[in-house]
Amino acid sequence: MSEPPSITQQEMRRRNLSLVAHAVARLGPLSRASVAAHIGLTRAAVSTLVDELIRDGLLVELGPSRPGTVGRPGSALQLNDQGPAGLGAEIGVDHLAVCAVDLSGRVRARVTYEAANRGREPGPVLRDLARLVRKVSAEAEGQGLRPAGLAVAVPGLVARGSSSVVRAPNLGWEGVDLAPALPALPLTVDNEANHGALAELWLGAHDPSLRNFVHVSAEIGIGAAIVIDGHLLRGTHGFTGELGHVPVRPEGPACACGGRGCLERYAGEEALLRSSGVDPARVAALHPGPGGRIAFLSERAREGDQQVRRALREAGKALGIALAGVVNLLDPQKVILGGGHSPLLPWLLPALERELDRRVMDPGRVGQGAVIVSRLGSDGPLLGAANSVVQACLDNPTRLKAGGKGGAAGP
Amino acid sequence: MSEPPSITQQEMRRRNLSLVAHAVARLGPLSRASVAAHIGLTRAAVSTLVDELIRDGLLVELGPSRPGTVGRPGSALQLNDQGPAGLGAEIGVDHLAVCAVDLSGRVRARVTYEAANRGREPGPVLRDLARLVRKVSAEAEGQGLRPAGLAVAVPGLVARGSSSVVRAPNLGWEGVDLAPALPALPLTVDNEANHGALAELWLGAHDPSLRNFVHVSAEIGIGAAIVIDGHLLRGTHGFTGELGHVPVRPEGPACACGGRGCLERYAGEEALLRSSGVDPARVAALHPGPGGRIAFLSERAREGDQQVRRALREAGKALGIALAGVVNLLDPQKVILGGGHSPLLPWLLPALERELDRRVMDPGRVGQGAVIVSRLGSDGPLLGAANSVVQACLDNPTRLKAGGKGGAAGP
Repeated sequence: MSEPPSITQQEMRRRNLSLVAHAVARLGPLSRASVAAHIGLTRAAVSTLVDELIRDGLLVELGPSRPGTVGRPGSALQLNDQGPAGLGAEIGVDHLAVCAVDLSGRVRARVTYEAANRGREPGPVLRDLARLVRKVSAEAEGQGLRPAGLAVAVPGLVARGSSSVVRAPNLGWEGVDLAPALPALPLTVDNEANHGALAELWLGAHDPSLRNFVHVSAEIGIGAAIVIDGHLLRGTHGFTGELGHVPVRPEGPACACGGRGCLERYAGEEALLRSSGVDPARVAALHPGPGGRIAFLSERAREGDQQVRRALREAGKALGIALAGVVNLLDPQKVILGGGHSPLLPWLLPALERELDRRVMDPGRVGQGAVIVSRLGSDGPLLGAANSVVQACLDNPTRLKAGGKGGAAGP
Repeated sequence: MSEPPSITQQEMRRRNLSLVAHAVARLGPLSRASVAAHIGLTRAAVSTLVDELIRDGLLVELGPSRPGTVGRPGSALQLNDQGPAGLGAEIGVDHLAVCAVDLSGRVRARVTYEAANRGREPGPVLRDLARLVRKVSAEAEGQGLRPAGLAVAVPGLVARGSSSVVRAPNLGWEGVDLAPALPALPLTVDNEANHGALAELWLGAHDPSLRNFVHVSAEIGIGAAIVIDGHLLRGTHGFTGELGHVPVRPEGPACACGGRGCLERYAGEEALLRSSGVDPARVAALHPGPGGRIAFLSERAREGDQQVRRALREAGKALGIALAGVVNLLDPQKVILGGGHSPLLPWLLPALERELDRRVMDPGRVGQGAVIVSRLGSDGPLLGAANSVVQACLDNPTRLKAGGKGGAAGP
């Protein structure tokens, strides 16, 4: 049954611990009294919760700001920067990356590794990834941090709540479980577009009232992630956001998904290269590595290449058509454009916005400023993954109990 | 801030009252002990909550099932069928309807009124509606019920949380506030597609695990409502679900919304009539009233009219193309087809399902049984509206406090 359970005292405590942790994360350094004022609980109740969070290693108390005075006049709480850490990993078509962030989301260790993963067997790719995870994890531990979990961003469909990639067409993977190959840490695996959207929510430096948006990650594939009231929409199977397979021209060119005229056939990286008159394989050989092919296209557009500019206009138009349908269906506050296509936006955006403006019901609410560009660039998915571990710690501080004293868990 | 508030004892009580009320609604008649077992609270706690719900008129206690025995051996709780009532109203293009339901959702009074509302001034329409509301309300009160609120379903955009119709193109209304013209009762106004979807959730007789779906109401306009984890997706402004304006063929015929090739231009009622070679105005004159034109088309299709059948196939195809995009984006468990087009489904469905099957990523999960047909027919929005009032009573029984003793509220 999906009936909500009755609330027990224990759940209330868990929720209130999380409120304290989030208040300090958002507003800290902060005194106990200020925390109480912000979350609307008594000072006594907050003090008990704070003591527990300190004991479990999430918060630390700074010394009094005016040393020598009686009591703890200015003593302030902040997140422990030697506490739990989130490990994030990204499996890209052209690279692997791993990073560690502390409870405030600051990157404390990071490594990127160029690798042509398309068509490579999952085994060797995951062995490389496991090596990078161990390296970053050791580096974080060396700084006094305690990795609390690992989240992996992948370019494909992930079954909801599982560690299995159902299908990642641009890697050529089907039905690959990541768990056996990776170090033994609490593991979550999710689509890169989902992690990118969560990064926008937590780190995007947007107006804090922005809690309903569609985040588009255009690169080799085109994914979208839908955030509603600050929560990611995951769908029944975990397969939301397949924007790349929204039909744009139903009788258009055949797509690998079995459909025709999907958005990816107009605005995905390979389609862009082809309609720019460029052989994707040749340019990939000349400009390897993450972003090489897109940098090449943006260079050509900047130099005034008319065919490239036309191709980008058409891609922007296709994106606008598909997004008009999305906005008519979902009524978001904003559409955020992220992902590897960012260098192409000067040529994509005008056509995209024109279509949105024409096709969205009640266009008054979109138009100026409805589309914004991510400031995280291609880092979004990796940072979103690492921060999802940290957010899970803040959402449910009690789950850290076992390792809370900084030592190994008992037998 | 959208930060969730800390939970107080009072909120816990409100939530637990609601759990008891919903348990009795779903499973009653039910003993206090069974309620306690179902919701996981102690019997003593449940008894206090039950006493409060009885005092406030939501529950009644049936006499002992074995009269003469000591104590209350089989004494069982059920919803009070002389308690609060929900009033629902529908403003259609061809009709007005009002009904009253009791706490179990049973219709206790109902009236339908044929009226050609298209292009009629809001004033006279709302005066007619107010008269019908008063009539149904009096009838409900005559049966001992106490109307707790009125919900109105309209064919248009309603600003989230307001009583104002922003735009109802098929009525020709813009910026019409319904509140001043209607009887003084707690009022909510919502799009008919939203109410239709809620009716599916509460009354649709689906598998109770069906909590994620897209409900399509195809009639003169084509609306959709998106239900996620049992909650309606409302969007930033309340404008979700404008499926009729999802682009199907971006260079297709111009649409009143300013776009081109919108779904409504292929599968809306007027488009269907035109592509069937029928003059919409003439058939409207010959077949007035709700459903007259659709009944005419389904009759022609049944008789084997090839042009009508082709028109329906094309409309089904357009619906399938638009819905493939929706499924790729939202990953629902099911698509439910409701609304006035129901009599046409035998000719619409095959083409619709073929497109979905071709175009949905990972088609294994849709295909057989992904599309289901509503059993509520065109009654959905009206029943959904009335039941939304009842659900609000069960969700928050304390809001009935003031009028809880059956008398008028104090000064």
